[in-house]
Amino acid sequence: MTSDGSVRIAVDAMGGEGAPGVEVEGALAAVRESEGRLKAVLVGRQDRLEAELTKHEHSGLQISIEHADEVITMDESPATAIRRKRGASIVVASRLHAEGEVDGLVSAGNTGAVVASSLFGLGMLPNVRRPAIASMFPTVDRPSVVLDVGASIDSRPSDLLTFAAMGDAYARYVLGRSEPGVGLMNIGEEATKGSELTQAAYKLLQASGLNFVGNIEGRSFLQGKADVVATDGFVGNVMLKLVEGVLDLLMNALRSPGHHEDFEMLKSQFDYAEYGGAPLLGVNGVVIIAHGSSSPKAIKNAVKVAAKFVDTDLAGKIVERLSEVSVTHG
Amino acid sequence: MTSDGSVRIAVDAMGGEGAPGVEVEGALAAVRESEGRLKAVLVGRQDRLEAELTKHEHSGLQISIEHADEVITMDESPATAIRRKRGASIVVASRLHAEGEVDGLVSAGNTGAVVASSLFGLGMLPNVRRPAIASMFPTVDRPSVVLDVGASIDSRPSDLLTFAAMGDAYARYVLGRSEPGVGLMNIGEEATKGSELTQAAYKLLQASGLNFVGNIEGRSFLQGKADVVATDGFVGNVMLKLVEGVLDLLMNALRSPGHHEDFEMLKSQFDYAEYGGAPLLGVNGVVIIAHGSSSPKAIKNAVKVAAKFVDTDLAGKIVERLSEVSVTHG
Repeated sequence: MTSDGSVRIAVDAMGGEGAPGVEVEGALAAVRESEGRLKAVLVGRQDRLEAELTKHEHSGLQISIEHADEVITMDESPATAIRRKRGASIVVASRLHAEGEVDGLVSAGNTGAVVASSLFGLGMLPNVRRPAIASMFPTVDRPSVVLDVGASIDSRPSDLLTFAAMGDAYARYVLGRSEPGVGLMNIGEEATKGSELTQAAYKLLQASGLNFVGNIEGRSFLQGKADVVATDGFVGNVMLKLVEGVLDLLMNALRSPGHHEDFEMLKSQFDYAEYGGAPLLGVNGVVIIAHGSSSPKAIKNAVKVAAKFVDTDLAGKIVERLSEVSVTHG
Repeated sequence: MTSDGSVRIAVDAMGGEGAPGVEVEGALAAVRESEGRLKAVLVGRQDRLEAELTKHEHSGLQISIEHADEVITMDESPATAIRRKRGASIVVASRLHAEGEVDGLVSAGNTGAVVASSLFGLGMLPNVRRPAIASMFPTVDRPSVVLDVGASIDSRPSDLLTFAAMGDAYARYVLGRSEPGVGLMNIGEEATKGSELTQAAYKLLQASGLNFVGNIEGRSFLQGKADVVATDGFVGNVMLKLVEGVLDLLMNALRSPGHHEDFEMLKSQFDYAEYGGAPLLGVNGVVIIAHGSSSPKAIKNAVKVAAKFVDTDLAGKIVERLSEVSVTHG
């Protein structure tokens, strides 16, 4: 935070599908609505960002540009790209964050590149071996947090315990849920069910001191049986894209107009624009991953979410929570 | 098959949630509609099955009872239950099949027990290390077959290749699809994406001679990009229950009556009653797993599907297909 108490968020302005127009419009809206509490740093091609800014009234708004002359595209290999393109917008944004020039960052770019540059630039929190992307899913009751949905694959049991503890902190301090129920994604409800990974993770969770509510199946998950659901990034990513896909499919199937209020309400529970993206937890900083096809509203909300994470010191809360559950990486 | 050419299907009449009434009614309907081509053997408590039969007109129908005095319930541990309850209906049905008294079996009981008793009673086909349950999923185009959805977990890459080859045979000879596209469930489209398991399986599939269409993500899956999708039983089971759950959730959300024709049509693509259950592939026999909450119609269709598998000699076709793709279990 700056000395005047405002929160500084870097916005990777070149990453998303509608870049840089969507990012500039969204960042401006977040700053405008913050009434002086928020400062945005647009990271990207100076000339293009200046041209975008002239399209909007922005006098008096705390907004600046940090030049970055390269862009990592959606189809590039993340690890290779962040090594080769040291001037890419997401790499520059991560560096600004690492150097303390900003308090958090938002990107709608290549998810793998956001994860890789965050790991490289910011490093991990103590006791975290692998990071996790936390995503909200709709349920009949209230949304559940699933993590990881794609930052880490081939997890160890202790990684799932770490994800559970990070999700617990997120549910408490960002979503405001007291004593959040923490579940383990599995293919049966009994303790003995599942893969080698989930069977071992079950034992760790049971002994963790978290409010462990046991195994969660695909169906009970949607009944809202847990506030937080821990899973390997492979399974979580399949779940995320499958639910997105089913909702899309149904939106197309339900062609008759005017009778979809309930459905729309359900879909909005899953709407990135409402949530403003998914946090990357476990890194030593505040990183919000917005959807590649984000609208200006989604970017605006992502910037606000980043600011909220800074305000609540979520990373600090995660470190506390992890020290309480004593993770040992086998 | 019997000498008169009729196909004999054992129906585990005690397994499902509505047993034995649902099973008896469904089996009778299948035999009635087959016009002499089908013979059903109801397996379960003789007294209860005779009582059920008296409720229906069944003179002249080829239906018989095989007594089994125990039942494996939904919450029993499959491996333990099939060892301890040698007189359980599913165990007796598997034994009838193994001894050649019937040509196939249908059960709506404890899925794990059906898998375990099939493995134990029938054994595996040559070159199959682990069996797979194949389930139909709705897509925008036509349903896709996903396997495995829960018979096998902690798969090896060669198991996924086996699943793909078995799914190919199923799509060709049961669904009538020529040159079915075979995909690999993964979390990215590029060959290098995914877990250790999927990366290794990708290479095997690429060299397999199957019509491999590459990696399938949750979203592209629902666009109907592949006729057959191979995945580990853990991921497949999460997918199955999640899609079931989302469709249930939406059925409840869409309360306004009369405007759901399109949605209903989509849901029917996923309806066990229409498909008559999911085949257990890889075992040396014909085993159809019906949903625990099957209706009589679902049981009827499951019996018909079992008969179709016998007619097409799907097990033989799977053996042929596997010999063509040369699976080596690492």
